Amino acid sequence: MKYFEILDEMFWEFEEYRDINKGKGIRGKLITIINPKAQKLAAVVEAIHLASLLHDDVIDEADIRRGVRSINAKYGEHTAVMLGDIVYSRAFYELIDFGSEIAKIVSNAVYLLSKGELEDVKLSRFINLDKEKYMGMIYKKTASLIEAACGAAAVLAGLEKEPFMNYGKNIGIAFQIIDDLLDVTQDEETLGKPAMHDFFEGKTTLPFIYLFEQASEDEKEKLKSLYKRKLQESEILWIRKLMEKYGIIKKCYNEAKELVDKAKEEIKKFNMPQLEIIAQKVVEREF
Amino acid sequence: MKYFEILDEMFWEFEEYRDINKGKGIRGKLITIINPKAQKLAAVVEAIHLASLLHDDVIDEADIRRGVRSINAKYGEHTAVMLGDIVYSRAFYELIDFGSEIAKIVSNAVYLLSKGELEDVKLSRFINLDKEKYMGMIYKKTASLIEAACGAAAVLAGLEKEPFMNYGKNIGIAFQIIDDLLDVTQDEETLGKPAMHDFFEGKTTLPFIYLFEQASEDEKEKLKSLYKRKLQESEILWIRKLMEKYGIIKKCYNEAKELVDKAKEEIKKFNMPQLEIIAQKVVEREF
Repeated sequence: MKYFEILDEMFWEFEEYRDINKGKGIRGKLITIINPKAQKLAAVVEAIHLASLLHDDVIDEADIRRGVRSINAKYGEHTAVMLGDIVYSRAFYELIDFGSEIAKIVSNAVYLLSKGELEDVKLSRFINLDKEKYMGMIYKKTASLIEAACGAAAVLAGLEKEPFMNYGKNIGIAFQIIDDLLDVTQDEETLGKPAMHDFFEGKTTLPFIYLFEQASEDEKEKLKSLYKRKLQESEILWIRKLMEKYGIIKKCYNEAKELVDKAKEEIKKFNMPQLEIIAQKVVEREF
Repeated sequence: MKYFEILDEMFWEFEEYRDINKGKGIRGKLITIINPKAQKLAAVVEAIHLASLLHDDVIDEADIRRGVRSINAKYGEHTAVMLGDIVYSRAFYELIDFGSEIAKIVSNAVYLLSKGELEDVKLSRFINLDKEKYMGMIYKKTASLIEAACGAAAVLAGLEKEPFMNYGKNIGIAFQIIDDLLDVTQDEETLGKPAMHDFFEGKTTLPFIYLFEQASEDEKEKLKSLYKRKLQESEILWIRKLMEKYGIIKKCYNEAKELVDKAKEEIKKFNMPQLEIIAQKVVEREF
């Protein structure tokens, strides 16, 4: 049975589960590329990812998840919290059968991603210009479960785990940097939400951190005055021009590309071309 | 180190954690009575209980937890969800070190209690008069983690787990029945919330299920008309009189007492008087 089928079987008794948009299952895909027999492990990690999304949407008050109404929007926040707990706890229960090394790799990632979620909220209260803090947060929030998925699959296949974990960590961080870039460069129609929504929500993502580093005092003042404000079209264009002026987009893009190159390098000797294709796709998303 | 200290050490870095009312730590107490060396296990199970309370208070929109403002009331629902996830995931991580048998006993209980929470909400939508469903729900929601705590402590001590699990299950269910009784018999000052608040919230607890079984058609009609309504003092008194007329309180109390007796019987041969005292206290709460 393929991992999406195992996942469905696990939670089909819960009617609300059937309305979850399960997305592309990238963590499961990575696991089954590294270890084609690890369908159950892939299902468990995808379950954990789903549970985290259920709680994320409550925390972010998101009404839409991948073009579909989110569970909190459809059934209420409380159902999303409860269903998230059900999915998390069942996943943990199943995880134990994979042995303590794998169970620890994955449950540690869940701890990190929960901490990352809290850090994300806290960093959004005021303008954060500390790159270290930002990178630490996106590692936890976005990359840690991808890192753990790859590591767990490797352990289960009897391969050394470090290269695969490094691969997962690097593509995870690169993915988030590109995501942050898209929020800055793309328009409302493409994004499905207002452009520069992150900045409106108080998130100074990598392009904003770099912009503040290079901007003049006047420009910084104006940027600060726009923080957490609904932006006019002209203000969005002004920020974009400023980013162009200082080469911010290129700089962030190159940083993501470097991470992807590092990721590919890590797993080169294992001859798994599909992993290289997935890494490449991370930086080839339209932006 | 005692289990409350281990618990504090685990989560002290999170400022919001310090405002949690940790309560009496009954699950940890049971674990360390059965197995005095199991302080770490007691801390882990108490952590799981805390995480479940954090999410419960969000789900129930509770502002007060044991006389203190709840985390959701103080820091917002979102923080309570995130902190709950942090505590849960850290507890799961620590749990793995106790071996797969214990990890499975405890994580299965978390799955059950999450399911029980959802069932509780669903049973509160309409008048539920199905005793089986009600008992199944309170087993999951309240008793399953107590059952697992006792079972895990026994396994860690090298004792047979079944008697201890049965003990935990029975006192857990008895505890909830007494809780439901108190909601009916006690007044606002003692309860810290309006009397018969459960019925107002749509919960037909055991006394109401029995009352509906015995009431006349007219009485049933009137009861239905009061369901989910803010009750007048006179209506509260009328319901109490009706319960007295049909001997409902006595019936529920006896049922809880029988469960407690069964619990004591289960662990008699192990000569642990403290367990018998705790069981006895469950039915000796003021009501």
